This record gives sequence, C-alpha cells and structure tokens, in this order.
Amino acid sequence: MESVGTLPQVRHDPVSDSRFLRACRRESVDATPIWLMRQAGRYMPEYRALRERYGILDLIKPPELACEVTLQPINAFDLDAAIIFADILPPLEGMGLSLEFVRGEGPLIHNPVRTTADIEQLRTPSPEEALPFTLEAIRLTRAELEPRGIPLIGFSGAPFTLACYAVEGGASRHQATVKRLMMSEPAGWDMLMTKLSTVAGNYLLAQARAGAHALQLFDSWCGELSPADYANYVLPYTRRTIEIAKAGGVPIILFGVGAGGLLERMATAGPDVIGVDWRITLEDAASIIGAPTPLQGNLDPAVLLSDLASVRRRSEQIIAEGRSLPGHIFNLGHGIYPETPLENVEALVQTDKEARPVLAS
Amino acid sequence: MESVGTLPQVRHDPVSDSRFLRACRRESVDATPIWLMRQAGRYMPEYRALRERYGILDLIKPPELACEVTLQPINAFDLDAAIIFADILPPLEGMGLSLEFVRGEGPLIHNPVRTTADIEQLRTPSPEEALPFTLEAIRLTRAELEPRGIPLIGFSGAPFTLACYAVEGGASRHQATVKRLMMSEPAGWDMLMTKLSTVAGNYLLAQARAGAHALQLFDSWCGELSPADYANYVLPYTRRTIEIAKAGGVPIILFGVGAGGLLERMATAGPDVIGVDWRITLEDAASIIGAPTPLQGNLDPAVLLSDLASVRRRSEQIIAEGRSLPGHIFNLGHGIYPETPLENVEALVQTDKEARPVLAS
Repeated sequence: MESVGTLPQVRHDPVSDSRFLRACRRESVDATPIWLMRQAGRYMPEYRALRERYGILDLIKPPELACEVTLQPINAFDLDAAIIFADILPPLEGMGLSLEFVRGEGPLIHNPVRTTADIEQLRTPSPEEALPFTLEAIRLTRAELEPRGIPLIGFSGAPFTLACYAVEGGASRHQATVKRLMMSEPAGWDMLMTKLSTVAGNYLLAQARAGAHALQLFDSWCGELSPADYANYVLPYTRRTIEIAKAGGVPIILFGVGAGGLLERMATAGPDVIGVDWRITLEDAASIIGAPTPLQGNLDPAVLLSDLASVRRRSEQIIAEGRSLPGHIFNLGHGIYPETPLENVEALVQTDKEARPVLAS
Repeated sequence: MESVGTLPQVRHDPVSDSRFLRACRRESVDATPIWLMRQAGRYMPEYRALRERYGILDLIKPPELACEVTLQPINAFDLDAAIIFADILPPLEGMGLSLEFVRGEGPLIHNPVRTTADIEQLRTPSPEEALPFTLEAIRLTRAELEPRGIPLIGFSGAPFTLACYAVEGGASRHQATVKRLMMSEPAGWDMLMTKLSTVAGNYLLAQARAGAHALQLFDSWCGELSPADYANYVLPYTRRTIEIAKAGGVPIILFGVGAGGLLERMATAGPDVIGVDWRITLEDAASIIGAPTPLQGNLDPAVLLSDLASVRRRSEQIIAEGRSLPGHIFNLGHGIYPETPLENVEALVQTDKEARPVLAS
C-alpha cells in the first residue's frame, strides 16, 4: 500500500484552467477568452519606441527583448493569452535562405527558391540549432506568465505560407510563381513541402517542449488556392506538420486568411481549434466544418479603426454568435492594424469582460 | 385576315442564340461558353504594341481604339463573348474625381473622398454626358460583332468597389479608410453609395441601350467585407444598381472576388448570373446560392502560367463540374495575368471546344 505522499498531487494549475486553454479543450468557460493577432505590435507606443532602436529581427532574436515585447500587451490590456513575439519567416534562415526585413517594404528573401536544385539544397536543421532564441524567449516568458495564470502561445508559418515567401522572395499579390512551381513540378513541390513541414512541425514541437501552452499554425496565403489545389498540394503537408507537433501535447490552432472555401478540408488536418477571418460568419464556418471544433475569431481589424460604439456593438455580436459554438476564442480575423487607437483595443477587451455576467447567469 | 407579309418575321438571330446568352438564360447549350476577364490585355502582343503608344485612358476614350482592342482577343481566339474595352474607374471622373493611371503603379485619384462635404459635392451626371466614348465604342463594336454572331458584354464597377477607389484614392490592401467611413458615418455612407449606385446603374442601362447584349457588375473588393457588413452597407446599393440596369432587358452578371462567404446575399441582389472565383468550388457555390442561378467561372488565372497538360486537365475538371449546374459560363476567377503565354490561352479555349462532342452526345 502506497503512502498518501506518493499519490499524484492534485494541484490547482491556473494556466491549465485558464479560459483560453479551457476553450481550446471545449470545456465550459466563465467568459469568452480573448487575444489579438499581432497584439504586440506597432499600435502600441511601447513597441514603437523599441522599433525606433531595433529592426524586427533584432527584437525577435535576443530572448529578453522578445520576452519584453510579448508582455507589453499583457501589461496593457486584460488579455487571456500571450503569443511569443517572433515572426513566421526566421525558420527559412536556418534552411539557407537570406532574410531581410526592409523598413516600409516588408520581408525580402535575397536568394529565393526557384528550381529543383534550389530545393535540394535547402537544409532542415533542428529548431534547437536554428531557432534557439525563440525557444529561450518562450522559457523566459513562460516563467513570467505562469504566476499570472496566463498561457503562452507559440507559432509557426504553415508550409504553404513558408513556400510562398521562399519562392516569391517576399510579399506577392497573386502568388503566381509559387503556384506555377506547385502545378508544374510535382516532385520538386513534394520535396519542398516535405522539408517545410519537417521544419515547421519540429519548430512547433520544440516550442511546446520549451513551455508554450498552445501552438498556432499561420497559413496566411492558403486562401489564394482553390479547394482542389489546397487538398492535393497543401493539406497533406499541413497535416504532417500538425502530426509532428501533436507530440508536444498542447492544443494546436490552424488559421488561414480568406480560407472560407477550405474550412472543411482544413479541419481534416487535425487541429484542435480553427481560426477564421471575418469573411465568413462563425455560424457558417461551424456548419461547414461539421465536427465540434472550437473556432477562433473573427472581428474585422478595420472595426478597431472606427468609433467606440461600433467597436462595442460589433464585438458583442461576435461574442453572442460564439456562444452557440462548441468553443469560441475571441480574436481578430487578421493582425491588428498599426493605426489602431489604444482606446478602441481597451473598449474591445472591456466589452469582452463585461459580457461575463451575462455568460455566467 | 392579315397578309403573311405583316406577320412578325421569325428571323434567326445568331447573337441571341449564342452559347453565352443561352447559358445566361439557363437554356441548353451545345458547349460551355467561354470568355476571359481582361481577355483584351497585356498578355497579347497586339495590345502591348498599342500600350507602348497610348495610356490606358487614351485607349479607352477614342471609340475606334476601344473597339479595336475589344476585338483583338476575338480575332485571336475562339471566344464566345467580347467585353467592351473600358475600365471600372472612368465613371468616377464624371462625378468630379481626378483620375490618373500611373504607369507601373495603377490608378490614382488625386482628390479622394474623405468627408461628408466631399460626398455632397459628388455629381451624378448622365452616362451620355460623362461616358459618351464607351457608349459609342459599344455601338461600333456591336456592329462589328453582330455579323459574327458574338455577343458584347458591357460592365461597370459595383458601388462598393467604386467607393473603395474614391475613398482610398487608389489600390489599398485592407480598404481600412473606406471601411472606417462605412462603419462610422452612416448618413455620409448612404449618400455616397446612393450616388454611386445611381451612376453605376444608369451607366449599365445606357450600355444596354447602346447595344451591349449582357452586363457585368464587378465588385472587386466586396470580398474584404464580413457577411453582415456586406448585407447592411453594400447589398442594398448593389441591388439598386441592378434594378436600374434591369430596364435594359439584358442579362446581368454579378461578380465578386473572394466573395464565397457572401454568395447567398449576393444572389438576393437580383443578378441573372453570379461570377465566382476559384477559392470556392462551383458545386459549393451553387449549394450556397440555392436558387438555380447560372454561375460564371472559375479557373485560377495562375493555372495559365503553368504547363499545357495542367491547363488542359484543370480546364476539363471545371467544364465537367459546370455540367451539373443550372448554367455555366467558363471564365477565369480573376483577370488574366499579363505574363500568360498565348499558347496556354489557346489550349484553354481549345479544351473547351474539344469538350463539345462529349456534351452533344
């Protein structure tokens, strides 16, 4: 007979019991959890002050700075989750691509991937080797957040979105070059997407092991694909990424921009939560997905540029709509715009908090 | 008893009996009609040769040149409809906005609409006064096409898309300024959209009266809106535009980019045909729309940058999918890209023509 002392301790874990993680697990919540994509960003004066002195990569790579930026919105607003300050593109550096963020122009890859020979040369280093700074930033930030009961989200770009930047060499309106490769070079495409899903999957897994409580896979450009192309050329690799990351044992959110036509297929990649943008109602998204998957979203970030009354009214509508879902995490449908007034963010978060008594009754 | 000579003549009218117009009317066709958005455009050497000598507006405004450009793709490929060479923005000039196409940068409005006072000053001249050149181009081109049995499509930008350019002052990634106006200034927005729907509706009607056999309303930016915002702030004005144009007695096509989440609402605006892009399957689009509305679309224009085998295979898939619809007009899901090889356009049109015996059997 074992002594009481050897029984597993039933300890109250405020992070595990947080609204955000409970919603990810489809458990009941006392209020709709809320966080905002790009919540650490240029709309905050604290962030702009740092960006005057540092480039994006210079803020991402020193773990102390990444931790500081991650905490800025948590200190300013009553948000229910933090997301590690990082970017979707640094994993490409470890693969051998030369990445630069050009002020005012966005990311630039100096040696984009165009041929099968280019793809063959791409490396797939371990995240511990290629991205130790973000893993260390996660350890530091988790230690800061744990006493406050706030979960930390890690993330990666999804294989297709990474492929878009790797092939196009930067932002691209139509993604025509990467689509040409995808459609015309099936073997090269498979090699590229296999490497990218290895890198993204291992990176997510390493973030979970470093302490991230949840993981988000950003597929910023999948909405440019037809459902058939998504199913044939992208979904298998998204699924593989999620399968690798699942070993981390934390919830995985799959988010696509403009992906209303892909939701049914995205759900089969195995995410725990699906993020949707504002171009489709939460109700329609849930109906397309079918399975009882919690949804994350879906306020148009442009609403935060309008007046306080509109911010409150539109937020209330989404919170109300979310109550009929199997689980709902309130978020924007895209990253917050730099011109967003702070008082509108405050009004948004406050509206969410004020909805609590109604929910609890 | 009347003499035989006074009976209405039952004349064979090849244009009215064309595949394109038959499909618009949900009548049976011997093959899927095909035309391509921006079929008169930079992928054609004949067009590039003219553009070396003329700016866009310099090609649009002289009716003889607009007619010549309209006929270029009709002479080169076995297309089932022509679309008048024009642009969605010239109607804004007549309203008092100063429009310029800056080479390599796209359209620019020098005096964008930002305040209610700006909106009050916008004029709503008749199309005969403001856009006589396009109406004359339609008369000229119809006379050229009639003996060949090919219908001519007229078009206009939809009120929301016109509002985007009028307010943003040019291309804009997020349409944040126009959305702010829409959300925060309901009275100003109503005045703006009422004026734009008057101008667009009257312009479409005048094109039908000048001889256009069908009309397309392009809502290039409506896909940036949430379904609720579309329903509240855009749909009533799109419906009004279509109601005005209906007096022309020709089929009206409503096309939106990235508008999969809006299709059910778009159908209630009263179009005869709905154009869809490749981000949703034709089957899903038909199921969302519900009513037996013919669909136009929906090949990803990036397919035309790939190899011949891919062009043929993907075109065949869409033609096959379209056969289960109440009516199908084959088109791209967006304007053809300037880098498109001519042989791929030829293969696309040929694939459509080769599918005929299968259809006829």
